[in-house]
Parts: sequence; C-alpha cells; structure tokens
Amino acid sequence: MRMYDIIEKKRDGKSLNEDEIDFFIDGYTNGTIPDYQASALLMAIYFQDMTAAERANLTMAMVKSGDEIDLSAIEGIKVDKHSTGGVGDTTTLILGPLVASVGVPVAKMSGRGLGHTGGTIDKLESIPGFHVEITNNEFVKLVNHNKLAVIGQTGNLTPADKKIYSLRDVTATVNSIPLIASSIMSKKIASGADAIVLDVKTGTGAFMKNLDDARALAKAMVSIGNHVGRKTAAVISDMNQPLGFAIGNALEVKEAIDTLKGHGPEDLTELCLALGSQMVVLSNHAQTLEEAREKLQESIASGKAFEQFKLFLSSQGGDAKVADEPKLLPQAKNMIALPAKESGIVSEMVANDIGTAAAMLGAGRTTKESEIDLAVGIVLHKKIGDRVEKGEPLLTIHANQEDVETVKEKLYESITISDGHIEKPPLIYDLIMEG
Amino acid sequence: MRMYDIIEKKRDGKSLNEDEIDFFIDGYTNGTIPDYQASALLMAIYFQDMTAAERANLTMAMVKSGDEIDLSAIEGIKVDKHSTGGVGDTTTLILGPLVASVGVPVAKMSGRGLGHTGGTIDKLESIPGFHVEITNNEFVKLVNHNKLAVIGQTGNLTPADKKIYSLRDVTATVNSIPLIASSIMSKKIASGADAIVLDVKTGTGAFMKNLDDARALAKAMVSIGNHVGRKTAAVISDMNQPLGFAIGNALEVKEAIDTLKGHGPEDLTELCLALGSQMVVLSNHAQTLEEAREKLQESIASGKAFEQFKLFLSSQGGDAKVADEPKLLPQAKNMIALPAKESGIVSEMVANDIGTAAAMLGAGRTTKESEIDLAVGIVLHKKIGDRVEKGEPLLTIHANQEDVETVKEKLYESITISDGHIEKPPLIYDLIMEG
Repeated sequence: MRMYDIIEKKRDGKSLNEDEIDFFIDGYTNGTIPDYQASALLMAIYFQDMTAAERANLTMAMVKSGDEIDLSAIEGIKVDKHSTGGVGDTTTLILGPLVASVGVPVAKMSGRGLGHTGGTIDKLESIPGFHVEITNNEFVKLVNHNKLAVIGQTGNLTPADKKIYSLRDVTATVNSIPLIASSIMSKKIASGADAIVLDVKTGTGAFMKNLDDARALAKAMVSIGNHVGRKTAAVISDMNQPLGFAIGNALEVKEAIDTLKGHGPEDLTELCLALGSQMVVLSNHAQTLEEAREKLQESIASGKAFEQFKLFLSSQGGDAKVADEPKLLPQAKNMIALPAKESGIVSEMVANDIGTAAAMLGAGRTTKESEIDLAVGIVLHKKIGDRVEKGEPLLTIHANQEDVETVKEKLYESITISDGHIEKPPLIYDLIMEG
Repeated sequence: MRMYDIIEKKRDGKSLNEDEIDFFIDGYTNGTIPDYQASALLMAIYFQDMTAAERANLTMAMVKSGDEIDLSAIEGIKVDKHSTGGVGDTTTLILGPLVASVGVPVAKMSGRGLGHTGGTIDKLESIPGFHVEITNNEFVKLVNHNKLAVIGQTGNLTPADKKIYSLRDVTATVNSIPLIASSIMSKKIASGADAIVLDVKTGTGAFMKNLDDARALAKAMVSIGNHVGRKTAAVISDMNQPLGFAIGNALEVKEAIDTLKGHGPEDLTELCLALGSQMVVLSNHAQTLEEAREKLQESIASGKAFEQFKLFLSSQGGDAKVADEPKLLPQAKNMIALPAKESGIVSEMVANDIGTAAAMLGAGRTTKESEIDLAVGIVLHKKIGDRVEKGEPLLTIHANQEDVETVKEKLYESITISDGHIEKPPLIYDLIMEG
C-alpha cells in the first residue's frame, strides 16, 4: 500500500477502506508517513468529505493508535458527556452528581487544558482538600460504590489525533466536519465511554457559528457512535452569550451548587436537564426523555442530587462543608460593578470576549505552565433580552488586581445595549438521536 | 503575512495576490515555509484552480526564484519550443535548423533527462565530435552568426519549480492545469525565451489523455505567456501512436536528417511545419502561418535547411559528413524484424509501451547515472490504419543484445491488429494562439 495512492483516491472523491485508513493512521503516528503527505490528504478530505463508514474507521484507527482506558470493572453503562466548548459552561460539575444521583455510573476522566477559565479539575480544586490523584483501583471502587468519581487524565490517549490536530492547526484543515467529529469521538471512546452525550454549541461564541454546521457536526458524531457500538446522542445549544451567570472557577462551583440545590440560573438548569435526560436514557435508567427528566427534577427537589455532590467531594478528600457554605471557596479581594452607560435592552453579549475578559483577570491559562487564580472572574446580572437602566450594574468583576480598566473596556465592547424589543435567544435548538 | 492565511484563502476559493504568491514561493524556496504547508496549498489549488493573473504571478515568482538566462546579446526575437513529451519525438532536432534557415535565431538550452530515449543533447552526441560544452560567449556568437546553437543546461534555473515539482510528485498534485502550466512556462522564461511555441500532446501516450485537458493546458500556457509579455502559441498534436517511425537516439537523428532533406515521415514533417510556422510568425519572420509554411517548405526543397543542419554540426565540433552518410552514426549489431502474427489493419500502437520497449534495449535512462546506448531502438514499418499481412514485419528492433524475447513480447502486447476499416488518427487537433 502507498500513501500516494490513498491521497489520490480521496482527491478523486472515492471512499477509503478500513485498511487504507489504518495504513495512514499507523504510518503517520509512527512517522513513516511524512507531514506533507498527511496534510495533502487532510486537504483532500476537507474538499471531498468522508462517508459514515470512513468516519467510523478513522475514529477507531485513532482510538487504536494509543492507550484505551478499560472501565469494564465498573458496573452499568458508563455515559460520558462532551461539550464542544463555551464560556461559563459549568454543566459537567452539575451533571456528574445529578445523573449519578439517579443511578447512572459517571467515571469522569478530565484534564486541565487551556481556555477562558480552567478545566473541570481546576474548578474542583477550588474546594479545599479535593484531589484527583487517585489510583485506577480507587477510581473503579469509588464509581461502583458512589456512582461518581473524577480522575486526572492518564495514559497516552489517541496520539494520532494529537499529531493530526497539530497539523490541521497549521494547514487550514481544522474546519472539516469528518475531521472534527472523528477527533472528538476518538478521545471519548479511548477514555472508555460506553455511551456518549454531546453538547454541540452554536452561535457567536461557539466554534460552529451557524446552526446548520452545528447540526451537521452533531449528526456526524452521533453517526460515528452508532457505527462503532457506542450509543450517542446530542443536544444543540446556544452560545450567543455565556451560559448561566458565572465565568470563573470558584464562581462556577458556587453556581453549580446553586443549580444542584434547585435555584441555579434558568438556562444552565434547563441545559443540564436536557443533557442529563439523554445520559439517563442512554444508560438505561429511564425509557424516555420525559421519564428521565422527571427523575432528575425529583432528585434536585428532594436534595438527593445535592447530597450526591457532597458525598462526591468528601470521597475525594474535599471539604463537603463548602457545599453548604460557598463563602469558604476562594474569594477575590475586589468586587467591581460595571454600570450600564445607557438605558435599553441588552442585545449582544459576545461570549468569547467576556471569556477573554475573565482570562485577563487570571481565570484561565494561556500556556500549559500558567498559574490560575481560582477566585477571580465575572458574574453577569443581565443577559440578552433583559432591560437595564443607565447606571445599573450589567455584571460584577471579581478581581485580585486593583486596576481593571482594560478589563472593563473589553467588557463594554462585548456588550451592546439597544432600543426596542429584543428576543431572548432560544437555549436548545435541537436534540439529535440519529446520525 | 502568514502561510496559514494564504492556504485558507485559496481553500475558500479566493484569488491570491502577487505579494501572497511571492511570499509562498520565496518562503518555500528558502525553507521558511515547511513542506506540509506547501502541500496543503497545492491540494487547495488542485481543487480551487487559479485565475489567469494568479497563474502568471506564480510563473514569474518561480522564474525569479533562481537564475535567469540573459539572451539580450542575441539579435532578434528568440523563440523556444517545448513539447509536453511523447515517444519518437524528433521535432527539436529538425525545427532548430529548419527555422534558423529562414532567419529565426534559435538559442537552445537543453538537458539530458530521463525517458524512453535520451534528450536532445544525447541524440546530438551520436554525431562524432559534436559537443555542447561551449561558453556563454561562444553560444551567443554562434547564434548571432549561424542563427543556431545548443548549449547544456547551466545555472540554477527555477529552484522553486524543482522543489514544488518534487512535492507534487509525492502528494498527488501533479495533475493540475495551473501547476503544470506555470511549471513549464517558468522554465522556458527563465531560459531566456522571448516567445514560446508549445507542442501539447494528447492521446494514450501523452500526459494529457483527452483533448479537452490538452486544450485547457495549451490555453493556460498561452494565457500565461501573453500575461507576462512572451508571445506564445501552441499546437495540440496526436500521441496515440509514436511520432514518425524511429524511436532511439541515432535512429532519430537519421530520421531528422531525412526530414530536413524532404523525405521524412509524413506526420513528423507535417508537425515540424506546423510548429515551425508558429515559430517563424512569433519571431516576426512572416506575417501569416501560410507565408511561414511556404518559407519553410522552400527551405527544405532548396536544401537550405539541410545545409543549415550541417553548418550547425560543424560549428559545434561535429562531423558534418554524417548528414550525408548516416551510416557513420552508431549502428546496432542486430536487426530483428517483428513479423505480424495475423493479417489485418493496425488499430492500436500504444506509444508508451513501444517507448518502454526501446528503453529496455538501452535507448533511455532510468536513473540520472544510467548509460545510454545511442545505437539501439525501434523503427516502425506500419502505423495505425495501415494494412499488414501475416508474417510481414511490423517493425525492426535495433539491438546490441542477443536476447530480445521480452522486448518482442512487450511490442506484441502494444500493437493490436483488427479486421475492418480503421481511421488513421488526425495528427493536429488544434492551433491555439489565444489563452
């Protein structure tokens, strides 16, 4: 087999078979296929797309390129959730305890990563004593016993995906549905998920700016999951503005606690119920989404979800008292309100720019080595469609620095206030159960 | 400027401007742009094509990437000819003396190259004493005095083209009209041509298998020439069978001599008149193709063309007697006829396979270091549309080896004899004067 022929075949719009895809992935991972042939193939895929079978084969080839986490010692159907990335997205912190409280085993492997705020592990570490440095054995035992545990990422997962992603990043081939879908799905499958629920964001703050692209990506991932024997479903949700009110690590933990107690922001609560219902159904703990939703709402109302959260914290060394007294979380020194410069209706809140403002305060990492300030961030008081009077605070900046002028400027730029009626954007655009 | 943005722009079907093309060619030539970005761009060009202006800018960027031959000391409009490559194509040997004999200055820079037979220089070196190791000064003087000289390739011409060609060759991006056209044109322009006549072959033995592709390539090259101030014209000619009768170095020299004397093969003579007429018109030695053709025919009939050839040989050290006594050329030891296995009409003569058979005898190089046997080759006795009786020779093998069984087998495979009427393929499909 020759890489040249594989490039030519895809260039001419033909489908690659499993052997050809394996040849490419194996050869590229071990270095016998050079970057310049890989990038030519990626560009050909960009133009010619891939069939459902090709996407599934590409995904599994990337899974096989590295370690695969074996979660078979955990009872039940392990459902993992993935979000394509947004600003102020605290769903993972909420969904874990929420679905675990109705019996779904959640074995979460998480990383730190780069972004506007820290990853799930950073956020959890704002709880004194909490740690993810547990052995695989402890991890399995905890999930079997408590239905929920979080462990730091270990092993060399999907090295082919890492190498291909780096190449796509410098050759203008990132924006390709088959390549995005197989990249995400390969990581989830290598992490041991039996079933996968996807939160595909769309809007100005999302990677997929328009609904059609988001729907195509969601369908592509659901199709891959179904092709490779992992039940998969997706929610397409709005990212034209930040989700919930809080953007920042400890601030988002507090918001997660509020939500688990039943008084979180409406949009965040609704999205957690939508995603959670799919997780409950995929793990066979309910027959229908309606039944699943009822179970989750009941669990919040009865305090079961909240108790599950506290159990989770204490079982990994965390101080569960924090859940009852969120002021024990890291607190920023200065709280600065951002007053509206005019009266009107909030018509725009550019999620990425607000995320950037939070990162400027120290909430996120810009390089793998940067330190994160867990206390700082932004809490919104208004969202799109809300009325605001001149001088009324749009949001509060939580800062440890004195000078927040440039942050304020960035925030003013990211928020638009208009006259007249502005519709609140819908939160959930679609549920995708079939690819 | 970033290469990433250039790839993305072309990927999205937009036109690159001159600065962007220069940035790519300069960066890729000097190594600051890596192969993997170049191959992604080439694949994007494969899919998105290039405008006339982009093709012209790409051509000139490649010209500027290396040395440019300055032929300004030669009087008149220097016209170069280029063929996209065929089997048994002796036109260069004939056209040089032919158009020089009517006053067109021919300053030919030629290489050895790989192929079924040797390059023009190899063929000329079958004439005892002939050599191309002359200084630039002698070269210029010879052309000014005799209108014709040939020199070996010197200087570092179009290094960008060489590097890009090597990359295209391993990334399935060879077959792209803008890339082929700019590659050919950049080499001709860097070699100092004021005007260019192109022989674009089409048919089973050509790179361009069908007429539409050949026409698109011809128009692309003529358009580039016109954009960059080099008058350019093209002939689209047939390569469904070898041109003329001879395939082999000395054998082709003999055929060239026959043609210059007025009794060469009909197709070879006709193609030389078609290409030669364009050369004469582009160099302003005739107003119309008809006038040019008359001049060339007159020159052959009067012996002027043949005298020009002898002058050319002797002025570069060659034994001009060879022209009168072609048996002084290298002769193969064995001449083996290939008898027809059945009676009928020749319906197929696969040019590439017949070329391969000649190479198997030693007429061509497979690596740059291989030795060529100037004496060996094949002389056809029949061409497509000719009637042949069982046992009648289809061709004669000129070999220095005893065992030619595998060569014979290859030749039998390449020739088909059928019943019924078979049309001779047309020789010239089109003349292209505008891109």
